[in-house]
Amino acid sequence: MRLGLDIGGTKIDAVVLDADDAVRSRVRVATGMGPNALLDSAELAVREVVERDGLDLGDVTSIGVGIPGMVDPATGHVRHAVNLRVTDLALAELLSGRVGAPVRLENDVKAAALGAYSLLGLTGTAALLNLGTGVAAGIVMDGTLWRGPGGGAGEVGHIPIDPSGVRCGCGQYGCIETFASGTALARMWPSQAPLPALELFDAADAGDQAAIDVRRAVAAGAASGVRVLVLTVDVQTVVIGGGLSNLGDRLLAAMTDVMRQWGEDSPFIASLGLPERVRMLPAEVPAAAVGAALVGAAAETASRPSAPSAAAAAEER
Amino acid sequence: MRLGLDIGGTKIDAVVLDADDAVRSRVRVATGMGPNALLDSAELAVREVVERDGLDLGDVTSIGVGIPGMVDPATGHVRHAVNLRVTDLALAELLSGRVGAPVRLENDVKAAALGAYSLLGLTGTAALLNLGTGVAAGIVMDGTLWRGPGGGAGEVGHIPIDPSGVRCGCGQYGCIETFASGTALARMWPSQAPLPALELFDAADAGDQAAIDVRRAVAAGAASGVRVLVLTVDVQTVVIGGGLSNLGDRLLAAMTDVMRQWGEDSPFIASLGLPERVRMLPAEVPAAAVGAALVGAAAETASRPSAPSAAAAAEER
Repeated sequence: MRLGLDIGGTKIDAVVLDADDAVRSRVRVATGMGPNALLDSAELAVREVVERDGLDLGDVTSIGVGIPGMVDPATGHVRHAVNLRVTDLALAELLSGRVGAPVRLENDVKAAALGAYSLLGLTGTAALLNLGTGVAAGIVMDGTLWRGPGGGAGEVGHIPIDPSGVRCGCGQYGCIETFASGTALARMWPSQAPLPALELFDAADAGDQAAIDVRRAVAAGAASGVRVLVLTVDVQTVVIGGGLSNLGDRLLAAMTDVMRQWGEDSPFIASLGLPERVRMLPAEVPAAAVGAALVGAAAETASRPSAPSAAAAAEER
Repeated sequence: MRLGLDIGGTKIDAVVLDADDAVRSRVRVATGMGPNALLDSAELAVREVVERDGLDLGDVTSIGVGIPGMVDPATGHVRHAVNLRVTDLALAELLSGRVGAPVRLENDVKAAALGAYSLLGLTGTAALLNLGTGVAAGIVMDGTLWRGPGGGAGEVGHIPIDPSGVRCGCGQYGCIETFASGTALARMWPSQAPLPALELFDAADAGDQAAIDVRRAVAAGAASGVRVLVLTVDVQTVVIGGGLSNLGDRLLAAMTDVMRQWGEDSPFIASLGLPERVRMLPAEVPAAAVGAALVGAAAETASRPSAPSAAAAAEER
């Protein structure tokens, strides 16, 4: 049985897939911060989703883990997962040692791209454009994740689109991420509301000009990400994911307005049919966990992991 | 024997490849304008390069043709090749009917990308960024051309990088093409010199501030194309081709200056090693003709073309 874990900043989403890649069972547990607590919570997520499914650990053939940060699928290390307080962790080996199944890691956005491709029944070439704390994309070509030789494919959040823009966390100016991320929205629309993005869109709907301007900046940033993906890779579908995708059709409408205005200026852009290529990831769909399970299944053909004792020894180092 | 033709606005470059993909023979003939003259000149190029090689037409197993404009490799039609005064031409079928070998078309920049990959002995994932009248890229992944499902991959020239920039021919504002094309250079550096780009770089070297600014704008536009290709696809190598690549190491140095400055602002950009990924296409290398020959070889496995009489009938329509 194939398991997938999506390790986020607050919770771990765990799923068991059936033979048709559909979700059989799903649980969520709180994410532990720092290497040891993170491992404990990942192990707990595995044990709980297995129990929920009425299985035991011996039935697990593979585990895939989607996690933010720099991931090396070959070594199973995750590095610089700042929000999880992890600098460098041999997560695949250590988790595998605890639960006795092969574990394969992937960057969470790349895993979500593969999961969305499967869950939405996409074909051909598609991308998931993740509008979260940061902005990044995962690209899937004919069902296969395109990581790039160095794993750097899809870093479209750090393409500058306005040299007069604000400085990005990456050090450049006016990156897509400075317009279309949760961080950007919080900067442009400071708010104490529990859901600032909803407050912004409500204010814009009510005619607040400042809100209309910020909504447009966010939507134009997101649409710029779509345009880059279409003009560079010619993706047929761009699925919008990440926290801002919870705005659903409201964000899609704002992005569509921007793309139609571009098309009025440019017959070339109009010919690309950008609005028709964009879809929102439905709320609550466990794209990253499902994608992680699919990535993990690739490990089934690899050798079984090192024995628990060896992994435990590695953990103590 | 595999032939390749690169049909440009002034000349057709024709090559014969040996079994190791090296150039055995090469000729150039003037390009005929409009459908009939274009076909005549393409046929002449085929006959001349075959004769140069000491072959006859019966030895030709495949012909590939790189041509500007919208190319549909499946139908063998080229459309909107404005500089060649061609609106819609069944070039593959018609040329095949005249010379009796299967003909396959490809967009000239995409063909040049495949040719550069072969000629420079590249591996992994690479792109050719063509800085000509316009700007476009061809992307090669592990030796295979990435066209995109609609053939639209690599249109990075029409990614806007400055909303306050001038209007592009495509209708948008501040596209990469408005900075890094021959057209852009002519706009920013009006000149009667036979080689305006050389005049510009000479003036910049001599300390002319206006020339230095224009040189920097051109180099920054080209470097932005590299950045987009690396951040989206993670290409390991970007070969600079097109007319501006005749500037050679002088353009490379100006681009490297820009990319190093970006790296000073951004450790993330510095970590990508952009300057190390860029190479200039050596002058006089027939990249597009060689790439076209490689594309054409894919037609060898397809059925032989329709009989000359049928093709001639089609030509008369």
